[in-house]
Amino acid sequence: MTPPREEIPMRINRTRLMESMDALGRVGETPRGGLTRLALSDEDRLGRDLLVRWMREAGLTVTIDRMGNMFGVRAGREALPPVMMGSHADSVPTGGRYDGQLGVLCALEAIRSLDDHGIRTRHPVGMIVFTNEEGARFQPAMLGSAVLAGKIPLEDAYNARDKDGLRLGDELERIGYLGPEPCAARPYRAYLELHIEQGPQLEEEGLQVGVVEGIVAIAWSRLTLRGVQDHAGPTPMRIRHDALVAAADVIGGVRALARRIGGDIVTTVGRLDVVPNIPNAIPGAVSLSIDVRDPDDRQIDRALEGIDELVREAARREGVTYDLAHYWRVPRTPFHADVVGAVEDAARSVGCGYRRILSGAGHDAQYMAAVCPTGMVFVPSRAGRSHCEEEFTAPDDIEPGANALFLAALSLAGRAE
Amino acid sequence: MTPPREEIPMRINRTRLMESMDALGRVGETPRGGLTRLALSDEDRLGRDLLVRWMREAGLTVTIDRMGNMFGVRAGREALPPVMMGSHADSVPTGGRYDGQLGVLCALEAIRSLDDHGIRTRHPVGMIVFTNEEGARFQPAMLGSAVLAGKIPLEDAYNARDKDGLRLGDELERIGYLGPEPCAARPYRAYLELHIEQGPQLEEEGLQVGVVEGIVAIAWSRLTLRGVQDHAGPTPMRIRHDALVAAADVIGGVRALARRIGGDIVTTVGRLDVVPNIPNAIPGAVSLSIDVRDPDDRQIDRALEGIDELVREAARREGVTYDLAHYWRVPRTPFHADVVGAVEDAARSVGCGYRRILSGAGHDAQYMAAVCPTGMVFVPSRAGRSHCEEEFTAPDDIEPGANALFLAALSLAGRAE
Repeated sequence: MTPPREEIPMRINRTRLMESMDALGRVGETPRGGLTRLALSDEDRLGRDLLVRWMREAGLTVTIDRMGNMFGVRAGREALPPVMMGSHADSVPTGGRYDGQLGVLCALEAIRSLDDHGIRTRHPVGMIVFTNEEGARFQPAMLGSAVLAGKIPLEDAYNARDKDGLRLGDELERIGYLGPEPCAARPYRAYLELHIEQGPQLEEEGLQVGVVEGIVAIAWSRLTLRGVQDHAGPTPMRIRHDALVAAADVIGGVRALARRIGGDIVTTVGRLDVVPNIPNAIPGAVSLSIDVRDPDDRQIDRALEGIDELVREAARREGVTYDLAHYWRVPRTPFHADVVGAVEDAARSVGCGYRRILSGAGHDAQYMAAVCPTGMVFVPSRAGRSHCEEEFTAPDDIEPGANALFLAALSLAGRAE
Repeated sequence: MTPPREEIPMRINRTRLMESMDALGRVGETPRGGLTRLALSDEDRLGRDLLVRWMREAGLTVTIDRMGNMFGVRAGREALPPVMMGSHADSVPTGGRYDGQLGVLCALEAIRSLDDHGIRTRHPVGMIVFTNEEGARFQPAMLGSAVLAGKIPLEDAYNARDKDGLRLGDELERIGYLGPEPCAARPYRAYLELHIEQGPQLEEEGLQVGVVEGIVAIAWSRLTLRGVQDHAGPTPMRIRHDALVAAADVIGGVRALARRIGGDIVTTVGRLDVVPNIPNAIPGAVSLSIDVRDPDDRQIDRALEGIDELVREAARREGVTYDLAHYWRVPRTPFHADVVGAVEDAARSVGCGYRRILSGAGHDAQYMAAVCPTGMVFVPSRAGRSHCEEEFTAPDDIEPGANALFLAALSLAGRAE
């Protein structure tokens, strides 16, 4: 099945792939070449419209489910479960054009390449574009795949609200992508996702492809601190209960916690909102997010206990009250040995440098791993940067990964002749 | 001039004053009984409309200047400089209904009371409603009186922008209060401002009136920290440059600075904004405000030097860059001995408990002190709370102050018969 190493008889069309990247990348492009295409925004709608057009032009059967996840399937010789490839098309604010979009377009390119080479597969081959992967607009992240995998009820996802109080269900309907298909798991031969690494490892080691063995465990917490809002002038220091001073204490504590636990753990306070947020009022309330990740679930347990304690102490020191909720957790996800093996074989046959790697970021593949045999292909991120306008992967670093995805999918689907 | 202590022949009409407080307090009222009436908002316009109507109904000559400051004057027997009373009608977000509004309505009540008692004064007596005192929407604070006193050019004030980028000059025009009169100092006999204390001293000592001797020195600084925006998952702790971690360090440092300098200094980080402000991105940039106040200008110098140093150190530790601007400073303002004396005499003749006091908050009186003999009357704040919905002063605590304002203004204007 795998082509011989000496010559690569089948490869994707790099020029066409990069042209698609440019075209889709213009939808929500920022002045500095990044991307702002928040889930279910007008830009997301325009991007989806383009993807649906391309999927139809590639002859795929397109369906949309009740979460707005979009599917395009190319028939196989037999009525077997399809091999699906995919990723997401939403971005963070002022993010980059590789996170998500590259995986979706490499999936499309792999399917277009099957046509180029006149290949018929045993299993159907298709692609999925998942809704609200980033969690930038609606929390938690990866909502489209979470509902598909039965991990979050559809109604809960619909009721997620953005900063302005807009409901996910309403926004989905507004942009015209609340589809008729049930959002539920179906039999799939496999799910494959190509994604940028978003970390520095591949670049540091001069490799082109990461054969992803699994995803680290992730926990998200939400903290609200409530002090006493008062005037910044006539209120003596001795009677203050400043929610932002307590929050600063927590931020320092969360950073120190990562240092104390050590190893591969990462901890981040990424979001923080102050009330009333004016120069001359002592902050009355602060809400903030805490993101914790580690390859080992037991380290996450330790970290959450550490957060409980440091928040309690910070609140006590400043005399403020708080609500702390550890509201989302995904355990470490190992990928399927057969799929990881297929990706590794494909990388080898492409002839590029590769290594096995663990993903530090959550991906839709994490939920898909509960649905069917799943694996991922990583490509390098320049300086490990992502979720920013500087996010970049050179075409020379994209091509080997795109070919590995193509060949792994073909291998899993099986050639019909 | 001062009425004998035994009987108080002249007093304001408490019922009418409280009715006016209720009526104006409904314009921008919050569900929990507070007030959100930001400068030059639609609510501010409605509040101004009501005040102009009341001033006209009281027979005052109403004028509006190019900063939207509103003036209402009651003629005196002679064409002498008027005694002006006033304050502001804008609020902070989810603030209270006493800050500003009480001073404006006590001024109006004092003028109405002159009519009640058929009093003619030698000097005219009037009131001023200043624009954008709070600095909540447009920075810096006290813009209306600053321009009037010649401390800030009108064009600079016009170019102040709110969080949404809206220009003060445009908003002033939009709500219809960009008046024709030059915004400039005129000869005034005196300026008197009644205001809530916004601190705990009067209540702690069981007194009704504060005879304000002056205002502490105030400095505002603005800090922007720039780190490296990146993904919260795959970015190892060792390569992070987190703008929010550096900001937390600064917030802790600013609090510690107040403890180290001691005495009456107060330091506050009241506003903080994170970019991109999502759970799974390492903050790339944070901007924040620093407010420092002390009765002694030399302590402010020490504090600003301390801030320079602690910001430099925090930025160095996290490997981030920064811009720090000490962009606004008002030195300690002593009020005029004659006016302070008139307020003290009035408080004595009202028969309430009073003390001399220094204001920890900035007020329009601070700029007016550069224009004419100026003084202030403080009334107690329950638990010292202000800039919050819990802000409250009991009618029993308002009445003595309102009477002191009335009698002090009358004393300075002189009875004509």
